[in-house]
Amino acid sequence: MSYAKQMLDVYAASTVDEKVLAATIDALNDCAQACTADADADLGDDNVARMVTCIRLCLDCADVCTVATRVLSRQTAYDAAVTRPLVEACATICARCGDECARHAETYPHCQLCEEACRRCEQACRNLLAAAERGTDA
Amino acid sequence: MSYAKQMLDVYAASTVDEKVLAATIDALNDCAQACTADADADLGDDNVARMVTCIRLCLDCADVCTVATRVLSRQTAYDAAVTRPLVEACATICARCGDECARHAETYPHCQLCEEACRRCEQACRNLLAAAERGTDA
Amino acid sequence: MSYAKQMLDVYAASTVDEKVLAATIDALNDCAQACTADADADLGDDNVARMVTCIRLCLDCADVCTVATRVLSRQTAYDAAVTRPLVEACATICARCGDECARHAETYPHCQLCEEACRRCEQACRNLLAAAERGTDA
Amino acid sequence: MSYAKQMLDVYAASTVDEKVLAATIDALNDCAQACTADADADLGDDNVARMVTCIRLCLDCADVCTVATRVLSRQTAYDAAVTRPLVEACATICARCGDECARHAETYPHCQLCEEACRRCEQACRNLLAAAERGTDA
Repeated sequence: MSYAKQMLDVYAASTVDEKVLAATIDALNDCAQACTADADADLGDDNVARMVTCIRLCLDCADVCTVATRVLSRQTAYDAAVTRPLVEACATICARCGDECARHAETYPHCQLCEEACRRCEQACRNLLAAAERGTDA
Repeated sequence: MSYAKQMLDVYAASTVDEKVLAATIDALNDCAQACTADADADLGDDNVARMVTCIRLCLDCADVCTVATRVLSRQTAYDAAVTRPLVEACATICARCGDECARHAETYPHCQLCEEACRRCEQACRNLLAAAERGTDA
Repeated sequence: MSYAKQMLDVYAASTVDEKVLAATIDALNDCAQACTADADADLGDDNVARMVTCIRLCLDCADVCTVATRVLSRQTAYDAAVTRPLVEACATICARCGDECARHAETYPHCQLCEEACRRCEQACRNLLAAAERGTDA
Repeated sequence: MSYAKQMLDVYAASTVDEKVLAATIDALNDCAQACTADADADLGDDNVARMVTCIRLCLDCADVCTVATRVLSRQTAYDAAVTRPLVEACATICARCGDECARHAETYPHCQLCEEACRRCEQACRNLLAAAERGTDA
């Protein structure tokens, strides 16, 4: 069980469903990890010139997912006005990065893995936004 | 002259006005610095309990501004679909953090400085979004 | 299986044992997550004044672990002269943060969990340094 | 005047000389900015393959400088055992990144600027460590 879930089990404050929140944090952490490693794998490629867009998007996606993880992990003084636009931006960026990784997924297993992590993370962000709509806030 | 401006002077790729972009990156860096220091100053306050919301928002704002700085500094394979929602989220978060700092600005000079940095950063983000509207993209 | 392990399985470049490296990256990610959540849980405490040192160390530890994860995930153009001092600094900071969390572990389950994550991460960093000594580099 | 200096002027807690501390935080912020932009400029180069080591080191250096900025900006519950190894690691990484940028400085003005930022940051880190030796701690 991830530390995100364990920590939310012993202390939690927001009105959002804990399981959905923990799953989103885990997906964000996974995506940040996959994107950081994929940018690096691309950089080591024999034909790095063709991977430039992928590297750039992976760097952006890793940065945004890392920060979204932190903001979502903060339950004290929770503020949907802060969280929601960031999660929406994150879903958009995961979609763009996933699309670019998909273009290289047949050639490179690392891009295939990264596409998967981006798709899961985008979905997890959208699930959280939907759960927040149903509850009081995100 | 900041390194953001110097670097954009010697290499630049996007369709956005360089001066507006450099000013936004500088405002984001300033805001991240002010928020990190303000969260810490709040934490050292005699009455830290009353500063909890301010600390939380400053931590979020520092994180989001730092990441926006990085994404905006990446000119290669520039993608407005990634940048715009992040800059919009950043403006929203700066506005919220600035409002909270304003509540403590008369009592604490560090909150007054942080409010100023947040307001400037919010405005810089909005200027960049407007410049991008006028040009091809953000 | 974590994305760190999956990515290293499909591409890897360094001379360090892949299993040790993947385990370290996972421990660093876990520790960053636990520390971010613990700082926030402390901040929501009724007696936040007594948790100030814990919050501060958790913020530092989360930051340093996050960055160490990224640097270790970069296998291309691997450079032990960069990695080793960072991993050593990370082990030291995890030890300090773990000691502080231990002081509150009986009172707060969130501090107990965070202490555990810090201890595991410190050990993982030391294991990686030892593996690097045995191999060519870290 | 930078926000680092302004914030330290209105609240400060450590035993280290404020001017040296503010100068180090500014140099770290500058270096993080220069390295982020330089990695991106390298990525857009016609011959990106030859810039791979430079990109990798710039990504690492930007990450470590950003985190060192945050840790040094935290004056509350200051702990030299945490700060010193991180600043030492940062100086080492700036030296390595500066050396690599120097190899491309004649060809690329962006690498020349980045080398300059790395050298200044390394020196600022060493100045801070020396000031801390003279005072009680870093």
